[in-house]
Amino acid sequence: MIIRHKENYKWENVPVLAYKEDTNCFKNITRQILLDGVTELPCQLRYFEIAPGGHSTLEQHEHVHFVIIFRGQGKVLVGKELQSVQEKDVIEIPPFAWHQFQATSDSPLGFLCLVNIQRDRPKLPTAEELIILQQDSEIAAFIKS
Amino acid sequence: MIIRHKENYKWENVPVLAYKEDTNCFKNITRQILLDGVTELPCQLRYFEIAPGGHSTLEQHEHVHFVIIFRGQGKVLVGKELQSVQEKDVIEIPPFAWHQFQATSDSPLGFLCLVNIQRDRPKLPTAEELIILQQDSEIAAFIKS
Repeated sequence: MIIRHKENYKWENVPVLAYKEDTNCFKNITRQILLDGVTELPCQLRYFEIAPGGHSTLEQHEHVHFVIIFRGQGKVLVGKELQSVQEKDVIEIPPFAWHQFQATSDSPLGFLCLVNIQRDRPKLPTAEELIILQQDSEIAAFIKS
Repeated sequence: MIIRHKENYKWENVPVLAYKEDTNCFKNITRQILLDGVTELPCQLRYFEIAPGGHSTLEQHEHVHFVIIFRGQGKVLVGKELQSVQEKDVIEIPPFAWHQFQATSDSPLGFLCLVNIQRDRPKLPTAEELIILQQDSEIAAFIKS
């Protein structure tokens, strides 16, 4: 019933996994599943860690993320908001908000991310959606896809 | 969509609340509600902090807790297991397991605790249940009720 933290954001008997199967649309992330849900609480809690200079996929989906920054710092796009985030900040990613996390160049960005076990698949932006996102010059300079 | 950590485990616009209304069965705890659930993810994420020497209620309930130690160290009783815990350890409290958290005398014990929005009320041990728990001398020395 206890998953012990070993050191350096690794836990006992928790494998360090690839972020996703498709390796095209992200850079330098690992995934660890800390809690995989039970009948009474059908949620999955994952720890993602983006190495310095890395980023998550630019994507959207119906399901919601509750995120707590656990290590380091970086930037996050949520919808049309671009924000710097650091340890212990809490972030809610609403349904269908475009989002992407990026570590700074000199720091990892590690975060706990809570989702429902039952959830829809993420969707990448179409060429048209990307053009709309890029109408904001700050967002255009930020996103990697 | 971002709740910024200010300093010292306090967050912007998040009030520091009493742990419970009934003040008889715990000592030195505060509660902050970091995320209060949405339709797509009907969970509540709370940050509890037990001051040095304090403890949570000895209780049980059907609903499950997912806990991540966020600050300091302490001990936790889960069912019949008594364990030391520290930062980044992850703990699952199964349905109807008796549980109690205690900070060490020289360190706070801060933890994130995830629950379903819909959940049953905690139940305190009866005199008979307390006698059964106290049959283990280590548990008898630990619990405060």
